[in-house]
Amino acid sequence: MARSEIKAAAGEAIEPADRMLQILTHSARLFATKGFDGTSMRDIAEACGISKSLLYHHFTDKDEIYARIALGSTQRLCEFVQDRLPEGASPPDRVRAFMTATGDYFQRYRSNWIASTAAFWSDPEQRRRKERMMWRDRYEGLIRQLIQDAIDAGDFRPVDVPLTGRLVLSSLNWMHRWYKPEKGMTPAQIADAYFDLIFNGLKAR
Amino acid sequence: MARSEIKAAAGEAIEPADRMLQILTHSARLFATKGFDGTSMRDIAEACGISKSLLYHHFTDKDEIYARIALGSTQRLCEFVQDRLPEGASPPDRVRAFMTATGDYFQRYRSNWIASTAAFWSDPEQRRRKERMMWRDRYEGLIRQLIQDAIDAGDFRPVDVPLTGRLVLSSLNWMHRWYKPEKGMTPAQIADAYFDLIFNGLKAR
Repeated sequence: MARSEIKAAAGEAIEPADRMLQILTHSARLFATKGFDGTSMRDIAEACGISKSLLYHHFTDKDEIYARIALGSTQRLCEFVQDRLPEGASPPDRVRAFMTATGDYFQRYRSNWIASTAAFWSDPEQRRRKERMMWRDRYEGLIRQLIQDAIDAGDFRPVDVPLTGRLVLSSLNWMHRWYKPEKGMTPAQIADAYFDLIFNGLKAR
Repeated sequence: MARSEIKAAAGEAIEPADRMLQILTHSARLFATKGFDGTSMRDIAEACGISKSLLYHHFTDKDEIYARIALGSTQRLCEFVQDRLPEGASPPDRVRAFMTATGDYFQRYRSNWIASTAAFWSDPEQRRRKERMMWRDRYEGLIRQLIQDAIDAGDFRPVDVPLTGRLVLSSLNWMHRWYKPEKGMTPAQIADAYFDLIFNGLKAR
């Protein structure tokens, strides 16, 4: 139970920042399970145990909540992964770390991830879309740089860097379409296994 | 201009089968550009240049059109790819052919692909979902079989077959999220380059 929920359950006053987080968390879960169109402001208010007017005090409309989830998520993903790249490790191990950290992020913030992936492609607001694109580009730029580093170090053969980056990101981005949390490998283990497949190749030697 | 459109423009009577295809094609394009919720039966009728009552004569509602696109698309993808596997080619070349054929299919039927990918995950009708799952499983079963064949022939090292299948499908399925038809490689060329990356691996030798 999050701190904000404990407070809410106890009927205590709750900090505005905690309230925001509470609203974003419940909204992300609702968007991920019922879809954006299937979720109303009333649903969100009810899930948070607050009145609709209090909800509207924090967010003008559903679009704004959605945008906040999506933008925050891409930025946080980027920072999360960056923080987990081991300094001084070999370039291939840094590519591996990029992949497993993305898997970890996906596992921890699964609802946000799913809601933000959907939001990313459907948000009609140009400015917000640009801001998200900036973070998305930074995230994609990071994996390209790591691949280039591995080529420069002589660890990777001289592959097409943007295409290899796409392959890595595709494997990670598609995971939310099929991954079932209740069975088998964790997302980080899957990402690690993908790294092995791509790094070593399928070809028998 | 499709045959049905020429006929429609000329004011001629048009065959029911052609009419169905015309409706499905226009609907797929509208769903892909405006989204399912952003597309009305009126929009579809207008795009086809027919009355709403004629449209309702063919389809009960928007859901039925959507389902038809989605189901037809998965089934056709499966058959399209199957037909393009070269008999007597080496197992790795058959895996490659699976990938490039999927790329070709994506290029030819892009609107349907995009609409059906969205529909696949959001269709509330259990029976239809099951029917599509059957084709989706057959398609996934096909790539797993091809990978297993390549391992059995000693061409692939003994990799995890389901996971390798997921990696291949992820690379292809994610393409619609970033592919721009106006520039660069064709989808089949991208699929071919992915095969090379995955088959040979990134590791310098």
